[in-house]
Amino acid sequence: MPKIVLGFSGGLDTSYCLSYFTQDLKYEVHTITINTGGFNEKTLTEIEQHAYTLGASSHTNINAVASYYDSIIQYLIYGNILKNNTYPLSVSAERLSQAIHIAEHAKKLHADFVAHGSTGAGNDQVRFDLIFNILIPTIKILTPIRDLKLSRQTEIDYLKNKGIVMNYDKAAYSVNKGLWGTSIGGKETLNSYGQLPEHAWVTPLTKEEPLDISLHFEKGQLVKVNNNSFNHPADAIVFLDDIAAGYGIGRDIHVGDTIIGIKGRVAFEAAAPIIIIKAHHLLEKHVLTKWQLNLKDQLAQFYGNWLHEGQILDPVMRNIESFFINSQQNVSGSVFVTLKKNHFTLNGIKSPFDLMNAKFGSYGEMNNSWTGEDVKGFTKIFGNQVSILNQIITDTHADN
Amino acid sequence: MPKIVLGFSGGLDTSYCLSYFTQDLKYEVHTITINTGGFNEKTLTEIEQHAYTLGASSHTNINAVASYYDSIIQYLIYGNILKNNTYPLSVSAERLSQAIHIAEHAKKLHADFVAHGSTGAGNDQVRFDLIFNILIPTIKILTPIRDLKLSRQTEIDYLKNKGIVMNYDKAAYSVNKGLWGTSIGGKETLNSYGQLPEHAWVTPLTKEEPLDISLHFEKGQLVKVNNNSFNHPADAIVFLDDIAAGYGIGRDIHVGDTIIGIKGRVAFEAAAPIIIIKAHHLLEKHVLTKWQLNLKDQLAQFYGNWLHEGQILDPVMRNIESFFINSQQNVSGSVFVTLKKNHFTLNGIKSPFDLMNAKFGSYGEMNNSWTGEDVKGFTKIFGNQVSILNQIITDTHADN
Amino acid sequence: MPKIVLGFSGGLDTSYCLSYFTQDLKYEVHTITINTGGFNEKTLTEIEQHAYTLGASSHTNINAVASYYDSIIQYLIYGNILKNNTYPLSVSAERLSQAIHIAEHAKKLHADFVAHGSTGAGNDQVRFDLIFNILIPTIKILTPIRDLKLSRQTEIDYLKNKGIVMNYDKAAYSVNKGLWGTSIGGKETLNSYGQLPEHAWVTPLTKEEPLDISLHFEKGQLVKVNNNSFNHPADAIVFLDDIAAGYGIGRDIHVGDTIIGIKGRVAFEAAAPIIIIKAHHLLEKHVLTKWQLNLKDQLAQFYGNWLHEGQILDPVMRNIESFFINSQQNVSGSVFVTLKKNHFTLNGIKSPFDLMNAKFGSYGEMNNSWTGEDVKGFTKIFGNQVSILNQIITDTHADN
Amino acid sequence: MPKIVLGFSGGLDTSYCLSYFTQDLKYEVHTITINTGGFNEKTLTEIEQHAYTLGASSHTNINAVASYYDSIIQYLIYGNILKNNTYPLSVSAERLSQAIHIAEHAKKLHADFVAHGSTGAGNDQVRFDLIFNILIPTIKILTPIRDLKLSRQTEIDYLKNKGIVMNYDKAAYSVNKGLWGTSIGGKETLNSYGQLPEHAWVTPLTKEEPLDISLHFEKGQLVKVNNNSFNHPADAIVFLDDIAAGYGIGRDIHVGDTIIGIKGRVAFEAAAPIIIIKAHHLLEKHVLTKWQLNLKDQLAQFYGNWLHEGQILDPVMRNIESFFINSQQNVSGSVFVTLKKNHFTLNGIKSPFDLMNAKFGSYGEMNNSWTGEDVKGFTKIFGNQVSILNQIITDTHADN
Repeated sequence: MPKIVLGFSGGLDTSYCLSYFTQDLKYEVHTITINTGGFNEKTLTEIEQHAYTLGASSHTNINAVASYYDSIIQYLIYGNILKNNTYPLSVSAERLSQAIHIAEHAKKLHADFVAHGSTGAGNDQVRFDLIFNILIPTIKILTPIRDLKLSRQTEIDYLKNKGIVMNYDKAAYSVNKGLWGTSIGGKETLNSYGQLPEHAWVTPLTKEEPLDISLHFEKGQLVKVNNNSFNHPADAIVFLDDIAAGYGIGRDIHVGDTIIGIKGRVAFEAAAPIIIIKAHHLLEKHVLTKWQLNLKDQLAQFYGNWLHEGQILDPVMRNIESFFINSQQNVSGSVFVTLKKNHFTLNGIKSPFDLMNAKFGSYGEMNNSWTGEDVKGFTKIFGNQVSILNQIITDTHADN
Repeated sequence: MPKIVLGFSGGLDTSYCLSYFTQDLKYEVHTITINTGGFNEKTLTEIEQHAYTLGASSHTNINAVASYYDSIIQYLIYGNILKNNTYPLSVSAERLSQAIHIAEHAKKLHADFVAHGSTGAGNDQVRFDLIFNILIPTIKILTPIRDLKLSRQTEIDYLKNKGIVMNYDKAAYSVNKGLWGTSIGGKETLNSYGQLPEHAWVTPLTKEEPLDISLHFEKGQLVKVNNNSFNHPADAIVFLDDIAAGYGIGRDIHVGDTIIGIKGRVAFEAAAPIIIIKAHHLLEKHVLTKWQLNLKDQLAQFYGNWLHEGQILDPVMRNIESFFINSQQNVSGSVFVTLKKNHFTLNGIKSPFDLMNAKFGSYGEMNNSWTGEDVKGFTKIFGNQVSILNQIITDTHADN
Repeated sequence: MPKIVLGFSGGLDTSYCLSYFTQDLKYEVHTITINTGGFNEKTLTEIEQHAYTLGASSHTNINAVASYYDSIIQYLIYGNILKNNTYPLSVSAERLSQAIHIAEHAKKLHADFVAHGSTGAGNDQVRFDLIFNILIPTIKILTPIRDLKLSRQTEIDYLKNKGIVMNYDKAAYSVNKGLWGTSIGGKETLNSYGQLPEHAWVTPLTKEEPLDISLHFEKGQLVKVNNNSFNHPADAIVFLDDIAAGYGIGRDIHVGDTIIGIKGRVAFEAAAPIIIIKAHHLLEKHVLTKWQLNLKDQLAQFYGNWLHEGQILDPVMRNIESFFINSQQNVSGSVFVTLKKNHFTLNGIKSPFDLMNAKFGSYGEMNNSWTGEDVKGFTKIFGNQVSILNQIITDTHADN
Repeated sequence: MPKIVLGFSGGLDTSYCLSYFTQDLKYEVHTITINTGGFNEKTLTEIEQHAYTLGASSHTNINAVASYYDSIIQYLIYGNILKNNTYPLSVSAERLSQAIHIAEHAKKLHADFVAHGSTGAGNDQVRFDLIFNILIPTIKILTPIRDLKLSRQTEIDYLKNKGIVMNYDKAAYSVNKGLWGTSIGGKETLNSYGQLPEHAWVTPLTKEEPLDISLHFEKGQLVKVNNNSFNHPADAIVFLDDIAAGYGIGRDIHVGDTIIGIKGRVAFEAAAPIIIIKAHHLLEKHVLTKWQLNLKDQLAQFYGNWLHEGQILDPVMRNIESFFINSQQNVSGSVFVTLKKNHFTLNGIKSPFDLMNAKFGSYGEMNNSWTGEDVKGFTKIFGNQVSILNQIITDTHADN
């Protein structure tokens, strides 16, 4: 009896896959659910029970939150990475973390097949296939939803016919929640124009009163919020999100290039990720040199795009992570933030490595570290090449 | 009698310079005021009168708004350029426009000297010196404030002593206003921590009621706001700013590297520039290809930094502008925006060149332009190299 | 009767295709041969006759040399583009030129199908498919060699069986000749180690005596060799290659990433391309500013890779070409070269725009344009930020 | 009596400085000579004796070869860095190594001053000043040759007048020799046109007979030449140079931007550096992924330029080095080279990490790892965006 590992969320698509594998194909199916921060205990228990009901031979829950942070999210923070200057890449990052855990599980169980429930229209199919092709190239990938081009109604009819009881209602908005943000798709995001209605946002707007908070970073990692310390930076993210999400901060719509070449549009809310990235970036503006900021930005743009396209296993990503880690040596200090309705302000920073240090001269003020003559000399040399060029061109024109 | 051209704003520093040149040095002084959008007619008349009072032989007013837009601002829009992801580079851009006009005036008048009122502590001295060194290398630059290291009080005493009547009060905040934004420096921005108080912002917060507006771009240029057309895109900027500034939109604090190596911090308000850049960028996300967006971003970062450092005359800037212009071919369409208190939302776009076009497949939906098999093949090839690498490494380890 | 356009070289693969289409599938076949510099008149006539013998309804010869230069080669020169710092991208560039001409022909003839003879193992299939998918998306692509996975022997048997007389001998080396170089594949290039034997190079080594020549560029284009002018820059390339190829100059082996993810290795000879690119680059080092050289290099690396991968129709390529054209304004002058056995030396340049101009100071010599004090001031400011950083770190350590 | 540390080469300029400090200024002078590979024991002894003759209170010889390699040269190899695609940056790298050792010496001795013999016309003054400003900001820099604008003859007259016996003949060519190459300046390099005569090259051309050699790299470092192992990679460089330099390999002329804005031209010979970089690069082409090669190149260009400009202490350089080190994980294997008169050929590589591995498919050959259908699917998706764009534009035109 062929053995198959199936990534399982308990939704309609993966429920169909599980039922199809156990009942139609008579496979031995081992389901696995990877929690990257979107499931609570109750939900995980329900998913597990549902898997067994549908015939799973075993079900495994992986709490991947810490490994997800350690292997991906920390680098998104170091790089201040927002795709197209907007989106924290939450879904992209989660899928890769999940795919890697699924591949490891399939390898451990010596599975004959590995399966995911993706359709043929999105990014996720590429991410799962890519990771599986690389990590478990000899294990064949099965994707019934994609291959059979199943409609939602066909899947429902199939499951109802098998007597499966589950929630068959189609939500008006498809939601994906995780540690690094919640994406929300709906009829407004299917076109190039349209805002989500207030009720469609997952976290309701409940707070308006401005609130001052402080974030403390050590070598680029968020280690304290106000005076609270944490066992792991992922806990700091959750803590901050609890404070900030009710302000409606970090709501936005991302438009960008999918891996398959079309443009896609998706709403998201990501209060903690947006605040952390903007605060971290502000701290870096104070402690990094001009060219550190510049080159980090260029590498970060590549890192975000390549991650988005599923290429987390390319060793160039390890090379960039080495650059990032090395760049965070002095990125330590506190950032002061005020939360307000739908937005926030960054009020400043305090860091022992702050390069804006009055001891060495203040911008626009008199100072003792250099003189006006130094600046004149600097400018003379700094403009030397273009000055020479201009004189040559003037001479050349004069000759004609 | 030596002839000198002096860039003149009518403030304390340039008033000192003018008086010093006419009365102490007995020079023939020709003052010039370049309006890049910050002066109204009344102020310009007052500056002119003040110049003559202080002994100017001639005074020239240049309305540089259109040329300022044409030579610099349009490229900042094409590139979506916000320095350090924050600042629209208003002061940097203005100084360069002003320096070029002053240099041309000095050349036209066959001046012996050219002068500016910069101190020895900021960016502006570099920008003026750099442009003058390049465009008028044989005309000597005079900078009394920098050279004599004059304090504010010394300048006041000098002018009062000469009987000059002007406003000697030191404003709590130093303000620089122009077409592309208003910068505001004060005690809160001298350190790494501190927000401006509400009263320090130049445009008071007077509007709260959400307002829907639309911006229409043609080949990257803002040509309509709602249904209003304009003679010149600079007029569209002024029109939009009148609508939006009262919402307190575009207020922020910029921290960054000065040309002279220290970090500097400055508050600014720039309602129209921020809205235009974000709207233009959103439109581009819909109409440009993935790599157009990518390479434009990289060139834009360089362009912004190099402009900030005064290097507008480097021919590499012309090369980049050619890239930018060519990239705007299809950047035409409308962007829909809602103005709110202290922030705004982008609601979407409409463009004949929108690449998010349901006719060719919708993200996450079934479509007819390609198949699941196509994507499988794509992913196979897309991950081929890293898959090979992974197998080689696995084999290599197995050998050991 | 379905109408098909077939790119036709007269070799074994396309002869099979033509016979298969006319005789087995009973299609109306219109063959087209695109000459990008590799065919002489006699060969073109033979190919045409061969096409008609095999049943072509029409045959078209396109002399694409000038358009090939104008649309691609000139930009490879402006960008000094050698893939992986080695390979002039001759085959990549030719295929794209050919694919575009074939697509235009298919559109003009309202063909039902378009065909190419590529196998499933190389880059060319991607280039042809990509261009056809973009330019003629409604015309179906046929690729019998790829689809039927035909071996060489199967094709020969098929053709002999049909009574077709042609040269069936397998050459020890597969050669592709064009304006911008000749590629040579053989048993030595199938592995990671091995040099071509002397006899495998297409142009025999016949010259040893050093020869001084001069190349004259106008705005980046080669317009004169020694004192010879030309109707078109492509003629200058041919003229130079006739002089230089006998020296064995420009022979090398390229190793790089194929579009399909594996590494590939190919020998090539490209005397004129290598000399032109190195000479053009030297001229640019004298006339362009530091950042023009820098940014051009970065864009050129992208341009070469993206062209190699067949993406010539991405509008980002037009954007880059605009940058390149604009950058060539002052790239005019003469470059002096000595040809020797298997290598050449660049002896220097002469240009009215040469920025190495003793009038403005000589490197390492006394000069009048700036002083030692200027340089001291420059260096003070130039190192200011890292100096501040170092003092802060020293202070921080001292505190601990 | 003020204490001064003087970087001392024993040449005319530093001899003048030493004499001037001890005899005219009555300083306590501590000389230091940093050997970055250019001095043999005999020369070092002569320099030391000369220092004492001229009145040095102490003289220190530092053998910096290993630290020079470890802190700079290894990264130039990892990055395949040739400035302007030509020059191995030997002088730039040496000066920075020397400046750092001098600064450390001055700090250790609690010197009041530090001095170097640079003139006001070159790059070296910037490199020394920059390092001293950063590492020893409180120790004043003295540069008599630059400050007093001394001519060669004035220096000679001064020293002869003091009774100093040394070689006062001006060499026709100024030579700087070190581990990473020898630079040669002469009348031919003062202008934009001119080749060195044969006799001006430091290493005479003595070998013509082709010689096969092999270089073995481990994680990017050269560890073996043929079958010879070494205590330190710097020894491998010396060994290889002894074999190769007599072939006249690695002779070239570099033209580039000096730090002070003018263009400079210098001849150099660097047999081992050029062979090592080209061999290392070839190995990388086989073992690194496409994007590793791409991003490494971009960072390397920056690294080389910033090093050239003296900015080795910017922490961004440490960040890049982290990237480089991480990228060298699999850069292990042998490279096969044939040395010939004035040039060399790279014949191939052998590496366990070679991604050109027939097991996973050969370029242009049938293979089992993917199918023609996979490539069709790949190409469909790969060209999807531009295909959509093209159809939109076609539709848009059709509408008009």
